Amino acid sequence: MIKRCRSLGVELRTNMKTHRTLEAGEYMTEGTKRCISVSTLAEAEFYANAGYDDITYAYPLSTDKVPQAAQLLLRLEKFHVLIDNYVILDALTASPPTEGRKWSVFLKVNCGFNRAGVWYDDPQSITFAKEIASKSCVTFKGLYIHEGDSYKSRGEDEIKQCTSEIFKRLNILSNRLQEAGIEFPVVAIGSTPSCSKPPDDIHGINEFHPGNYVFYDYQQFLIGSCTMNDIAVRVLTRVIGHYPDRGQILIDCGWTGLSLDSLGKLRTGFCYFEDHSNLKLLKMTQETGTVEAVEGSLDVSLYPIGSFLKMIPYHSCATAIMHPVYYVVKGDLVVDRWIPNKGW
Amino acid sequence: MIKRCRSLGVELRTNMKTHRTLEAGEYMTEGTKRCISVSTLAEAEFYANAGYDDITYAYPLSTDKVPQAAQLLLRLEKFHVLIDNYVILDALTASPPTEGRKWSVFLKVNCGFNRAGVWYDDPQSITFAKEIASKSCVTFKGLYIHEGDSYKSRGEDEIKQCTSEIFKRLNILSNRLQEAGIEFPVVAIGSTPSCSKPPDDIHGINEFHPGNYVFYDYQQFLIGSCTMNDIAVRVLTRVIGHYPDRGQILIDCGWTGLSLDSLGKLRTGFCYFEDHSNLKLLKMTQETGTVEAVEGSLDVSLYPIGSFLKMIPYHSCATAIMHPVYYVVKGDLVVDRWIPNKGW
Repeated sequence: MIKRCRSLGVELRTNMKTHRTLEAGEYMTEGTKRCISVSTLAEAEFYANAGYDDITYAYPLSTDKVPQAAQLLLRLEKFHVLIDNYVILDALTASPPTEGRKWSVFLKVNCGFNRAGVWYDDPQSITFAKEIASKSCVTFKGLYIHEGDSYKSRGEDEIKQCTSEIFKRLNILSNRLQEAGIEFPVVAIGSTPSCSKPPDDIHGINEFHPGNYVFYDYQQFLIGSCTMNDIAVRVLTRVIGHYPDRGQILIDCGWTGLSLDSLGKLRTGFCYFEDHSNLKLLKMTQETGTVEAVEGSLDVSLYPIGSFLKMIPYHSCATAIMHPVYYVVKGDLVVDRWIPNKGW
Repeated sequence: MIKRCRSLGVELRTNMKTHRTLEAGEYMTEGTKRCISVSTLAEAEFYANAGYDDITYAYPLSTDKVPQAAQLLLRLEKFHVLIDNYVILDALTASPPTEGRKWSVFLKVNCGFNRAGVWYDDPQSITFAKEIASKSCVTFKGLYIHEGDSYKSRGEDEIKQCTSEIFKRLNILSNRLQEAGIEFPVVAIGSTPSCSKPPDDIHGINEFHPGNYVFYDYQQFLIGSCTMNDIAVRVLTRVIGHYPDRGQILIDCGWTGLSLDSLGKLRTGFCYFEDHSNLKLLKMTQETGTVEAVEGSLDVSLYPIGSFLKMIPYHSCATAIMHPVYYVVKGDLVVDRWIPNKGW
């Protein structure tokens, strides 16, 4: 991702939310500890405590978090926030930072994903951007979107096509703002599919903020963001029961170890078992999983009680959050233990 | 639950897996710190460290966990395990406990739920029980089932009907074992629905091991285990965005705060909003939720940015596991903070 962004001439503001560790942060910033984004203030504090700086709180700021955001702004050289409504803009202007500092504010934009943000094609979005830029205690940093639509793509061509359309939409707003005399340095987009397989023309975009690519996962493989070989995370589980009459085995991983993401919709259930394409994770309870064959009847003797299976998660963000420690392996050897930041 | 079990004449071996806290453990054991069950060895250690004893590791024991189970057996007066196959029985007999102690072993039985356990009506189950009872390093403690079928019930009558059928099945095996001269003191069943609404005739059953009832949840209400007033857990969330054009609001709780349990299948989505029966949690991302109306168009002005909503989880076990701390409230006042045990 670092090489890609460099060759494209965009800044990489890597998102820490998938892993929330200092160790992966080192890799993702090439040791600079600069220019990251986070999804919680707990992460912002965690990375600030570890000497990181230039942090974007990549989440719609809410009024209750203004005091903590103000403290982070003062202790860091650069700390940026995202907003999409007047309530939070008013709260920011009602609490101007001390020490001659200004709030560094992105306008969160919606180009179709419909999660958060102002609509790119709404004249009121220009009015709101003008308001942001007019505040004496605010630096208008630019436009920020999460390109979530790319998750609906299948294959590199569709990702590029989808992303191109989003870029066009974002540029429509960007151009209108510039025509209206509103200045801002950054037009930022993120999502692992679009940043992994960006379209050829990225005119007007100068910052990428993907996060999931640190691990990738089976979902990203299905989308076309990566190959199976790129997926760097597994849940190791053990076979603990044999039920040949119903062609099922029991494993010692439930939703506390994998998460319920995918909602079971995959042909292989809730995950993909490495090297065992005919295994399906049919259901999970808190600490167990029931595995059967995708097709035909399972020969349980092929999976002895006590043997290991490696689960490739559908969504590594959802799986990683379930674990108090990640074991870093080379081959079959555990070479490190990473402790992720938790909570909010 | 304590009163119910006392009046029924069954022992309550309350399961800690839903909350994993010392504080709730005190309530659930009336301060005796005795006769509990747990779903992980991490919990067993946690409660043993806090002076708890007579602990059942209510999970199919696997060979890799035998050394840790042996240590727990030696440090506690009573520590019981569950098995359902010869691989683990052989591992137990290959590692007889020292200090004159014996393994205390339950036979895990399947009466229809098809997760783990030997089939109640299979002659081989009797052979296996005989094998367990014949081992000199083993005390055969009895039969143990999780009565998961009760989760399919709707209403008290169905719960009782379903549970009666399971009791019948368990008693079939229990009687056959006794006829075969195999002695054991305990026939134990669990599940919050069946222990909350037990049938009138509980002949042959002498231990209940429910867990979820500590909090209950919306699922238990739908099943008929409890009333809405019995549900003792909420996720407090804030409105952080307004999108009137599409009749949606954004809240600051995603699947890291609620879990994906229910898989979104409820009429109200992934949870039930207290006092707002027309709100639907349509979708979640890592740290956000999108809420719209169940019917009609949502008047977003009724839910000001910054205001609170209380989410009643579909499955409190799955929600509780996501949180590093529980805030105990009386009215609107936080009166305590409970820190749950985590991991495995």
